[in-house]
Amino acid sequence: MSARLAVVLLSGGLDSATVLALAVASGYRCHALSVRYGQRHYAELEAAKKIAAALGAVEHRIMSVDLAGIGGSALTDPALAIPEAPTAGIPITYVPARNTLFLALALGWAEVLGSEDIFVGVNAVDYSGYPDCRPEFIESFERLARLATKAGVGGAALTIHAPLVRMSKADIIKTGLRLGVDFASTISCYQADFAGRACGKCDSCRLRSAGFLDAGVPDPTRYA
Amino acid sequence: MSARLAVVLLSGGLDSATVLALAVASGYRCHALSVRYGQRHYAELEAAKKIAAALGAVEHRIMSVDLAGIGGSALTDPALAIPEAPTAGIPITYVPARNTLFLALALGWAEVLGSEDIFVGVNAVDYSGYPDCRPEFIESFERLARLATKAGVGGAALTIHAPLVRMSKADIIKTGLRLGVDFASTISCYQADFAGRACGKCDSCRLRSAGFLDAGVPDPTRYA
Repeated sequence: MSARLAVVLLSGGLDSATVLALAVASGYRCHALSVRYGQRHYAELEAAKKIAAALGAVEHRIMSVDLAGIGGSALTDPALAIPEAPTAGIPITYVPARNTLFLALALGWAEVLGSEDIFVGVNAVDYSGYPDCRPEFIESFERLARLATKAGVGGAALTIHAPLVRMSKADIIKTGLRLGVDFASTISCYQADFAGRACGKCDSCRLRSAGFLDAGVPDPTRYA
Repeated sequence: MSARLAVVLLSGGLDSATVLALAVASGYRCHALSVRYGQRHYAELEAAKKIAAALGAVEHRIMSVDLAGIGGSALTDPALAIPEAPTAGIPITYVPARNTLFLALALGWAEVLGSEDIFVGVNAVDYSGYPDCRPEFIESFERLARLATKAGVGGAALTIHAPLVRMSKADIIKTGLRLGVDFASTISCYQADFAGRACGKCDSCRLRSAGFLDAGVPDPTRYA
């Protein structure tokens, strides 16, 4: 039996690297997809390229979409500062409709490849409170995806896999380590510098470093 | 009371121009959104710009996304020919996940604008059999959209308006004429030339010209 194909959304961060490792370990031939969306933490795309190769993705593509044109997020608008302390509510780093858009790109590519499996590293436990990281969002997108495609006319078997959705950051780290993910090459920081060094202060850095602490393993992150 | 804001997806074709006219007539302040997605019928973006201005959109933006990188459609892949006679099944002009992606962009912009209304010109009667033009697709996207946004955390009132979804092409034309749409400036052709002249042979041209015939009004389309 030939391996099933999967499209894996790969940001270059800790979570999506672990998801790719999980998908590869499950026997999928993985087509990794990163998105250039005007993010200021651009170094993550370089990280994604290395991770895709290291974990054995059969292909890695970077697609472009100009979310910066929409604005409204500190991740795409240089005029908005990245918070370096906890904030109440949904933070300014939230990018409107980002996961809807990324999943739509993954869906289009999956349809062209003939893949019925999309993997995404969303997480609703140690996360930043983004609405499009919740399990009910993923379930709703899966229902949409089954209607949205050619195969959907006859009732598609398309599945959106979000294996991390109910895991803690520490559990994600332990899972990744078990599968050989080199977390030193992943970048989670919202404002990593051109060399890929993390700020250590933003929401994403704080969640990540707390995760390594909770997991009881050394934090290999390169801090600026 | 101030007017409600709406995001209106505007391709530059006959259907979306009519939708914009309907939204304006309903009292919305309309932000028109066109997408540059690697389509070969590029003249439609120029048409969209004129239509947005003529119908009184308060703003018109063109966002870019590289669907050509996904391939699989004659609309984005120059190596695939546009069919010039009816074909069985879902035609090669179908662009994988296109409406999911366009609606995701509209959703992101709506969220930034603080709009709860998105208009889209999909039509499931005189159409090309695309899965993402069906009413059940639109309803499913609306459910997704209500979960996907900041407002969705508290339960958003977001509505996806698809006023043409059950109308015939002739009825769409009559509605547009009544609202002052200048159909001569719209472009529906899948392979319009650089001057915006239609081929008269593709699926979209055939549906459009049959629509004018059924409506009993002269076809103002400029054919090559």
